[in-house]
Amino acid sequence: MDFVNNFNNIISELKKISPNNFLYKKEDLYVYAYDTSQNPDKITLPLAVVFPESTKEVSDIVKIANKYKLNIIPRAQGTNHCGATRPEENSIIIHFSKMDKIIEINKENLTATLQPNVVIGDLNKELDKLNLFFPPDPSNLAVSTVGGAIALCAGGPRTFKYGNTKDYVINLEVVLADGTIIETGKNVAKNVTGYNLTALFTGSEGTLGIITKAVVKLIPKPEIRLLTFAYFDTLKDATLCVNGIINSGFMPSCLDLLDKNTLTTIENFNPCGILCDKQAALLIEIDGFKESVKNELKILKNILKNNRAVKIIQSNSEEENENIWKARRSAYSAVTQLKPDVVTEDIVVPLSKIAECVEKIRELSNKYNVIVCTMGHAGDGNIHPNFALDLSNKQERNNFEKLKDELFMYAVNTGGTLSGEHGIGTHKKKYLKAALNNNGYELMKRIKTLLDPKNILNRNKMFDE
Amino acid sequence: MDFVNNFNNIISELKKISPNNFLYKKEDLYVYAYDTSQNPDKITLPLAVVFPESTKEVSDIVKIANKYKLNIIPRAQGTNHCGATRPEENSIIIHFSKMDKIIEINKENLTATLQPNVVIGDLNKELDKLNLFFPPDPSNLAVSTVGGAIALCAGGPRTFKYGNTKDYVINLEVVLADGTIIETGKNVAKNVTGYNLTALFTGSEGTLGIITKAVVKLIPKPEIRLLTFAYFDTLKDATLCVNGIINSGFMPSCLDLLDKNTLTTIENFNPCGILCDKQAALLIEIDGFKESVKNELKILKNILKNNRAVKIIQSNSEEENENIWKARRSAYSAVTQLKPDVVTEDIVVPLSKIAECVEKIRELSNKYNVIVCTMGHAGDGNIHPNFALDLSNKQERNNFEKLKDELFMYAVNTGGTLSGEHGIGTHKKKYLKAALNNNGYELMKRIKTLLDPKNILNRNKMFDE
Repeated sequence: MDFVNNFNNIISELKKISPNNFLYKKEDLYVYAYDTSQNPDKITLPLAVVFPESTKEVSDIVKIANKYKLNIIPRAQGTNHCGATRPEENSIIIHFSKMDKIIEINKENLTATLQPNVVIGDLNKELDKLNLFFPPDPSNLAVSTVGGAIALCAGGPRTFKYGNTKDYVINLEVVLADGTIIETGKNVAKNVTGYNLTALFTGSEGTLGIITKAVVKLIPKPEIRLLTFAYFDTLKDATLCVNGIINSGFMPSCLDLLDKNTLTTIENFNPCGILCDKQAALLIEIDGFKESVKNELKILKNILKNNRAVKIIQSNSEEENENIWKARRSAYSAVTQLKPDVVTEDIVVPLSKIAECVEKIRELSNKYNVIVCTMGHAGDGNIHPNFALDLSNKQERNNFEKLKDELFMYAVNTGGTLSGEHGIGTHKKKYLKAALNNNGYELMKRIKTLLDPKNILNRNKMFDE
Repeated sequence: MDFVNNFNNIISELKKISPNNFLYKKEDLYVYAYDTSQNPDKITLPLAVVFPESTKEVSDIVKIANKYKLNIIPRAQGTNHCGATRPEENSIIIHFSKMDKIIEINKENLTATLQPNVVIGDLNKELDKLNLFFPPDPSNLAVSTVGGAIALCAGGPRTFKYGNTKDYVINLEVVLADGTIIETGKNVAKNVTGYNLTALFTGSEGTLGIITKAVVKLIPKPEIRLLTFAYFDTLKDATLCVNGIINSGFMPSCLDLLDKNTLTTIENFNPCGILCDKQAALLIEIDGFKESVKNELKILKNILKNNRAVKIIQSNSEEENENIWKARRSAYSAVTQLKPDVVTEDIVVPLSKIAECVEKIRELSNKYNVIVCTMGHAGDGNIHPNFALDLSNKQERNNFEKLKDELFMYAVNTGGTLSGEHGIGTHKKKYLKAALNNNGYELMKRIKTLLDPKNILNRNKMFDE
């Protein structure tokens, strides 16, 4: 009875904030029980979904959540892979689809001021016109948003040269757990004025505060980008070549590795002439001034040849790039053709362990009978195995859980970590304590309690209750 | 009497930790009452200076500080400009001169593991041999240390292209206020596994924990670096040229601005052919592969000409670079010849405000009758006025305080901030509240209290008591 009363009060109070931007009927809520990540065993509906139009409205929602000890889940497109936006019991989803404006692009100051739901691909289209560039480029940049990228500290293929989201966020507007609104920085690229609150909130997965506005740093767009695609007869050759490239002074804007399964799956999905008899390939992007890139491609070609590349495909224009990128970006979609479900994972290992790690993933996929296509940002040691399986099959599901337990413990034991760009969310929180040393874990929990004493911000994510 | 007893107990307990690495006699302490920053009105001696040899010893010292509520001041070479290592009452200095080892340089994994007192210049000499590179390069890199650079989040001329210290620290060993030892990350460049504790401690000026070991990310060393020195008839021309360079797609590894006073002072100090009749100059470094740099220098030359550069000096070798760098790096020493004291300041403004800011500094220097030579990292909006004055003259000292009050409020009111790379320490803490919005300031203080409940870590720095 209490709950029914409370529920009615909650609904009526939320409705007051923004009567037209509000869903609470059961049939409207199902779609918000999901995000891109692997389905949980049990679907939980949120109590309501609110679509605020201003920071003030977000703050008002948080105050209601405070009063009733509700769980707030901030989300935009929900393209994360770690269950970061999945509802828990008694959850209100703050959906940012109405806060999707590019507030300002300041060409002279090299900054952009953005609402959370700005799609990264759209932002870069606008920046393109001004010869500017926002480097973080999650593979799903056509849908993924700035708010999500900041909350999860997303990366992408260009991280090796350009860094990931945290390296571009310079100021955040954040609603804290009590509804207070703070700014974490200033709209300047260089700032050591007090603690780095911007970095504390970036990658905190909505568990410390709700990001309602972001100022990001921009850089000039390189005159040209060209792609080289190099095949290798063994995985070891490909990874040794990664060292060869770096040791020669290269910082390619992309240095991705694709294994044989990935190559074959992409070619089967959409035939584009990929060689499927090779064990591995490297996708290398060089960017800069035209003449410089031309010169550097010559140097690169020699390095590739000296490092046992057996075939080299060179793009000579942005159009030719696009064909290669399309193939590379289709890797995830291609894997979805193999089995009803795909789970894309994300681990990091020291650079010296990349070949061993890819072998380990193969070994685990054989042991647990799960198809895997592995690719990764080899310059960063950030490996993405895409697992194809049928999660409705209990046996496969159980096997996969065991596989993941082994995989993540392998990453940690080899000196690496659980995630380079996808985050922890619900899916990896059981490994977090092992991945940090205990004291680091305890300090993180103390910070969580300081900022969210009632545990109303994305409860039960990142940490266990 | 109590204090005398306590003092004897403190000394005898500290002595036990490391009997030979310990100073407490008055005559030995004076030298540790100073750092590079402007002298305070009143010198305070520390109670003792300890030179630990291990993290365990640091932790033991912190436990003693805890017991007696002493203030711990971690320091290395003390080259900071903000009074971050100045003793307060009842202070123990932890001096890292015995923790100065390069523990490991891992070429394959692109990491270095370092004790706090490793000198950045020495590190880069070792890295040079391996064709590797640690980009943060404070101007005093011949003496400044990795521990200090991390505690203050130091930058340097190369920040515009390469980022500052926070962009290279991937894992810290930190002794917390209760003596607990934590690790903040993993030895991999990409990591979004829980909160970004590494960034929280970087730049925290010893107020949240004591950094005892750091793992930093390395990058391949560019094949060549060449310098261009361009003169302008007006300051406005020089800053417009900065925009021109960036808008043409350049990310120079250095893009520094020097005003007429700086040029003249350097030339008077050590004649090297600098043109003293010009209002401003830009120092531009382009790095990369030889042929690429050659090509880019051609493009740069055109941009400079189109942007009203009146004379362009081009270095053609690393040796010629060195001559120009020597002149640039002598700027601070040159200013010391003008008056008994030099105070180097550090503010950040939006890029569009650089010319206005340099004019404002001139205006303030006239108003308060203080000589100023201004330079700055123009690509970052990070401006360094070097003030020459006689601080023993009470009138000059008072004038200078008023000048600083106006200068820092100007930076804040123009959308900038108090520091881009020197930190807050004791010297700027009175402006911190104004530079942040109140809620940001309060959150920082809450984090300080969480991590240092007894206020024993570099007390009275960054915040007022």
